[in-house]
Amino acid sequence: MRALVYEGPGQPVLRDKPVPQVQAPTDAVVRITRTTICGTDLHILKGDVPTCLPGTTLGHEGVGVIEAVGAAVCGFAPGDAVLISCITSCARCEYCRRGMYSHCANGGWILGHKIDGTQAEYVRIPHADTSLYHVPANAEEAALVMLSDILPTGFECGVLNGKVAPGSSVAIVGAGPVGLAALMTAQFYSPAQIIMVDIDPHRLELSRRFGASHTVRAVDRAAVKAVLELTGGVGVDTAIEAVGVPATFELCADIVAPGGTVANVGVHGCKADLHLERLWSHNITITTRLVDTAATPQLLRAVLAGRIDAAGLVSHRFRFSDILQAYSCFGEAAASGALKVLISADHLT
Amino acid sequence: MRALVYEGPGQPVLRDKPVPQVQAPTDAVVRITRTTICGTDLHILKGDVPTCLPGTTLGHEGVGVIEAVGAAVCGFAPGDAVLISCITSCARCEYCRRGMYSHCANGGWILGHKIDGTQAEYVRIPHADTSLYHVPANAEEAALVMLSDILPTGFECGVLNGKVAPGSSVAIVGAGPVGLAALMTAQFYSPAQIIMVDIDPHRLELSRRFGASHTVRAVDRAAVKAVLELTGGVGVDTAIEAVGVPATFELCADIVAPGGTVANVGVHGCKADLHLERLWSHNITITTRLVDTAATPQLLRAVLAGRIDAAGLVSHRFRFSDILQAYSCFGEAAASGALKVLISADHLT
Repeated sequence: MRALVYEGPGQPVLRDKPVPQVQAPTDAVVRITRTTICGTDLHILKGDVPTCLPGTTLGHEGVGVIEAVGAAVCGFAPGDAVLISCITSCARCEYCRRGMYSHCANGGWILGHKIDGTQAEYVRIPHADTSLYHVPANAEEAALVMLSDILPTGFECGVLNGKVAPGSSVAIVGAGPVGLAALMTAQFYSPAQIIMVDIDPHRLELSRRFGASHTVRAVDRAAVKAVLELTGGVGVDTAIEAVGVPATFELCADIVAPGGTVANVGVHGCKADLHLERLWSHNITITTRLVDTAATPQLLRAVLAGRIDAAGLVSHRFRFSDILQAYSCFGEAAASGALKVLISADHLT
Repeated sequence: MRALVYEGPGQPVLRDKPVPQVQAPTDAVVRITRTTICGTDLHILKGDVPTCLPGTTLGHEGVGVIEAVGAAVCGFAPGDAVLISCITSCARCEYCRRGMYSHCANGGWILGHKIDGTQAEYVRIPHADTSLYHVPANAEEAALVMLSDILPTGFECGVLNGKVAPGSSVAIVGAGPVGLAALMTAQFYSPAQIIMVDIDPHRLELSRRFGASHTVRAVDRAAVKAVLELTGGVGVDTAIEAVGVPATFELCADIVAPGGTVANVGVHGCKADLHLERLWSHNITITTRLVDTAATPQLLRAVLAGRIDAAGLVSHRFRFSDILQAYSCFGEAAASGALKVLISADHLT
């Protein structure tokens, strides 16, 4: 089969690999119909993720069809249409029993990281019964593939951790795919204001289309001033960080109201300043979270019921054979206007 | 009357002032029977709290007897024994309606800060109905005065924000009065481990007496190593910061387990480093809080029922006339072994 392989820092390589087989009785092998690229894949290619070894097939998002299952797999059978979670969960360890699947002692984020991932014709999924979800065969796969990672990430790490509530004020710093996923799912809870903060006018325009009440085109002191003006000088109840650099995290801490929450979603590569000399008495909460995908079934029902336009996050579509072009498009998002790129098995396009 | 007055950075002055009078219909005037000194009073004397103007009587803790009430005060009458909360609450503004009395638009921490405080023979208490508590006339006042600030601070900012739970692991960094208040009140929730972390052997000995399961005499990398060893390499579910310097905050972030909480209690004067490059995926919560004293009635019942030895936090006793000596003793705690110093009206000693 063909697979998109990390060969060390630099360009990924599309090459042949053996079709994966069931190795453990809890495994399933899935034939991929759709996958996509995550910002984390770009981090790996930059060499920022040393736990990902050269030779690994990238990708942790996808939908497909069960090809084979191990003897212990009870919930899935060959031919079943499935959604693959970016988080693999054994459902047995202490973290899984607490619903913290991201820290599963036997899984967590391993796909396209510690084991071969979904940017291939087939993928092996460990702990299949608790790491896959049934999906209707006729559902729109462009929407479903958003459920592997970005929708639960925006929802769990941003909206739920940020305690978005009816009548509250929310700022989302970063209008990339995950920030927009937070924007979409924040609206489940009917906040009074959702202020999108970014410097890219195209993404801010999309934000308005996806339901932002206000947009702020800045991420510096001008952004602080604008958000405070929009909130009567008080700041927001929820500030969601969806970029992953110190400046945007510190911006969130500057715009959160007393009693509010800074919910970090971004993947950070270095430390940030935490101004405790101001914040110690501010009665705030700061949260961090690697997505647990505990909310995936809930979000799947919301998507199938048409409550959010998940497929609207797909900006570009490619055949799997053209995945290197998809990487170029996604990697140059500022120029291409890319949000999520949908990569489909060749026979589907 | 005599009052202990902040005259600008340096030593406080014990001098005459007029007895305060009812100014607003919601005021009460309280004759102080017992008061104490807080670390925050020392911060003011160092000039660290510019919102406290010279001429202000210090002190935000105390118990006493109602001397006079304004026409709108319904819950208190002259002669009533009362506990004074360090937080003044109007009970009407939006923050008060949310239970966030610390941020009361018409009060908050004003006693001994923006208006004259409790280190005097009499004090005026605004919004008396919602800023005072009835106490039994025969209760031990040494215990009651711990309820003005340090017990609710340790409990609300540390134990409640830190989500201490049965069977959980807790580390409290800083075994001063507030850290010990957190230690006492953490035991309400039956954690499996309470590890006290400090460098003062006397305070660690007291910690063991007050119920710590383990003590660690270090606040540097050796402390991180020791706490990880005590928790099977995982870290603690709750790390309570009760010092107020960057090193101890960063220690708490280093010892918190995935899924855990760092509850900041300390008053900070400068920023700390937040290592998001490690913490972004650690699923942790960081909280800050100026005490709301929302838990004061609950804690009062616990103290009156003998569930905690609040009076055990009093290490030294002084007459009000000797309050300058009390300041010296409290200010040189490392040498004097002082925890809380109880200052009593002269006629009571």
